[in-house]
Amino acid sequence: MAATATRTVDWVDGAVELIDQTRLPHETRTLRISAPEDLAAAIKRLSVRGAPAIGVAGAFGVALARRAHEHDTSSFSAAVEMLRSARPTAVNLARMVDRAAARASEGFDAVLAEAAAIRDEELAASVSMGEYGADLVETLVRESRGESRGEGRGRDARGWARSEGRDGIRVMTICNTGGLASVERGTALAVVQTLHERGRLADVLALETRPLLQGGRLTTWELARMGAPHRLVVDSAGPFLLARGEADVVLTGADRVVANGDTANKIGTFSLALGARYAGAPFVVVAPESTVDTDVPSGEDIEIEDRGPGEVVGFGDTLVAPRDTPGLNPAFDVTPASLIDALVTDRRVVRLAHGETLDGVAPGPVRAGQA
Amino acid sequence: MAATATRTVDWVDGAVELIDQTRLPHETRTLRISAPEDLAAAIKRLSVRGAPAIGVAGAFGVALARRAHEHDTSSFSAAVEMLRSARPTAVNLARMVDRAAARASEGFDAVLAEAAAIRDEELAASVSMGEYGADLVETLVRESRGESRGEGRGRDARGWARSEGRDGIRVMTICNTGGLASVERGTALAVVQTLHERGRLADVLALETRPLLQGGRLTTWELARMGAPHRLVVDSAGPFLLARGEADVVLTGADRVVANGDTANKIGTFSLALGARYAGAPFVVVAPESTVDTDVPSGEDIEIEDRGPGEVVGFGDTLVAPRDTPGLNPAFDVTPASLIDALVTDRRVVRLAHGETLDGVAPGPVRAGQA
Repeated sequence: MAATATRTVDWVDGAVELIDQTRLPHETRTLRISAPEDLAAAIKRLSVRGAPAIGVAGAFGVALARRAHEHDTSSFSAAVEMLRSARPTAVNLARMVDRAAARASEGFDAVLAEAAAIRDEELAASVSMGEYGADLVETLVRESRGESRGEGRGRDARGWARSEGRDGIRVMTICNTGGLASVERGTALAVVQTLHERGRLADVLALETRPLLQGGRLTTWELARMGAPHRLVVDSAGPFLLARGEADVVLTGADRVVANGDTANKIGTFSLALGARYAGAPFVVVAPESTVDTDVPSGEDIEIEDRGPGEVVGFGDTLVAPRDTPGLNPAFDVTPASLIDALVTDRRVVRLAHGETLDGVAPGPVRAGQA
Repeated sequence: MAATATRTVDWVDGAVELIDQTRLPHETRTLRISAPEDLAAAIKRLSVRGAPAIGVAGAFGVALARRAHEHDTSSFSAAVEMLRSARPTAVNLARMVDRAAARASEGFDAVLAEAAAIRDEELAASVSMGEYGADLVETLVRESRGESRGEGRGRDARGWARSEGRDGIRVMTICNTGGLASVERGTALAVVQTLHERGRLADVLALETRPLLQGGRLTTWELARMGAPHRLVVDSAGPFLLARGEADVVLTGADRVVANGDTANKIGTFSLALGARYAGAPFVVVAPESTVDTDVPSGEDIEIEDRGPGEVVGFGDTLVAPRDTPGLNPAFDVTPASLIDALVTDRRVVRLAHGETLDGVAPGPVRAGQA
């Protein structure tokens, strides 16, 4: 399995190596970076993206800074600050940079060990989400097939390019939640990968994810790399394909899960939750425990960022709409807990649809189905 | 009003004039066509598109053919056949060409008069749909505001770029259903235009409509041309924006309405119907009576065309996904009658949500609200 894994960022023979995501999917180029300022620039230009991935990159960047400025504390501090602020809104970056920098007085080896520990924690979290998630999905799909819920399920195929093997599991997913956004494996896509490794994956319907097309650009690339069967679809087809019984489960990541279980994620997630409920297909959110924010009581308290018309009026480099067309461009949406069957983290499974709550469950893992 | 109208195709001073839709929205060029073979070529390359528009264009093409081949019956017949088959799947084209050609023995003036009658019928149908639809929408929105239905309505704006004027009506629409697809005004967009002319329109949220982006390219252009306030949004944002109360009503066209009221329309329509129902916002289909096909009993009997991966992996010259990515690309979806509040045709309003059926209503107009 190691050969098909995507390690987005790592420390290799004395330098940071990362896959240049600005080149994907048409070119797979690995950048090798030895100077902290080059790493900050790579973070800034989105060569590495995704909260966990830039957290790990930033921590390794502190090791580069510690080596570069061994005898100059003030230059070291300046380099750390530069790394910290390369992506101002990414809380995880600042947090991980600080964690690695706290070991600076112990020397380069200690800083590097801390950064490697951060990387290993991310890897372990992804493996854990993949295992819990795959167990849960196998259980939910078995239940759902047994009960044959929903209006759209079990219909005739009517000539559709329907995936083979009703025994295998057919997943629908949105955005990029794979190794590219973390270090390896990711969140929702870690579950897909685990199902694939278990020989249980029949199909992935990947939504292209307008406006920035992370599904079309990155998720397709990751799925091809892991050898998983997949097809790309436009976002608006998702709910209808669910209603027609073309997927068994929806798996998404999360930007933030608040106290009552309401979940903010990439725009389009809510429409899939509506489609899944209509179809009687389970809707599952996969996100690390660090995404849970119990300080915010409910989804109504989440402010939605509008990213302006620029991303909407065009497609890649092509201007589509009349030049001055106004846009409304919410970066993410909020799916109410009532539409979420379960939340899978690196430590637990919370079956929201069964009335379980985020603080009503023991923090230890709740395994679903057989291991 | 004439100055802001979009007459897609017409007979002007002895020739056919049409707006070259392949140039929109970045260039508005009118083609003047005097030879029937040039008109067939324009239809083929989609300079004119939309069933009603190409029907009218084809009928005027027969007039061009009658003039060009005044003394040569076999050349005339060949020209008619060429026009008839310029778009093989467009039933309306063949039907209207045949109707104009049936007057050929009476001479050029009779053919031209028949083509003009077809044009005028299309115009009258659009005006009629606009009036019925605007009356209905005013009534439905008043009812909906009075009852304050749904979970998402009336929430705080929380800093959103919310449109002004809760008195005005805020419409969400998908694809292009305006004058460009007919002759002038269109179907769902005719209702928008009528509301605008009545001073009742506060905002239009136009969905871009992947994969071919008819909303982004054409609807925005038509709305700007009629001076209507509008904003472009990605398709997957539609259901969430409805849930947040950002639109009062969804207006869509239809490819086909079958006997039980189930409606086939552009992919993405179904997801808006789900969003509208969740939000308690009315969902209204606007389509000419000729779209109603009572030979097909229900939406389950409609075969969905898969248009292949080409449209999904990129747009125009922009390749997004890895080159050989497979796709699933349903051209349209089916919205069940249970999610449709009303169907507006050029002859009647059928309030499906009130239990009215397509053949249970007198074919005369049922006016809703005040005129």
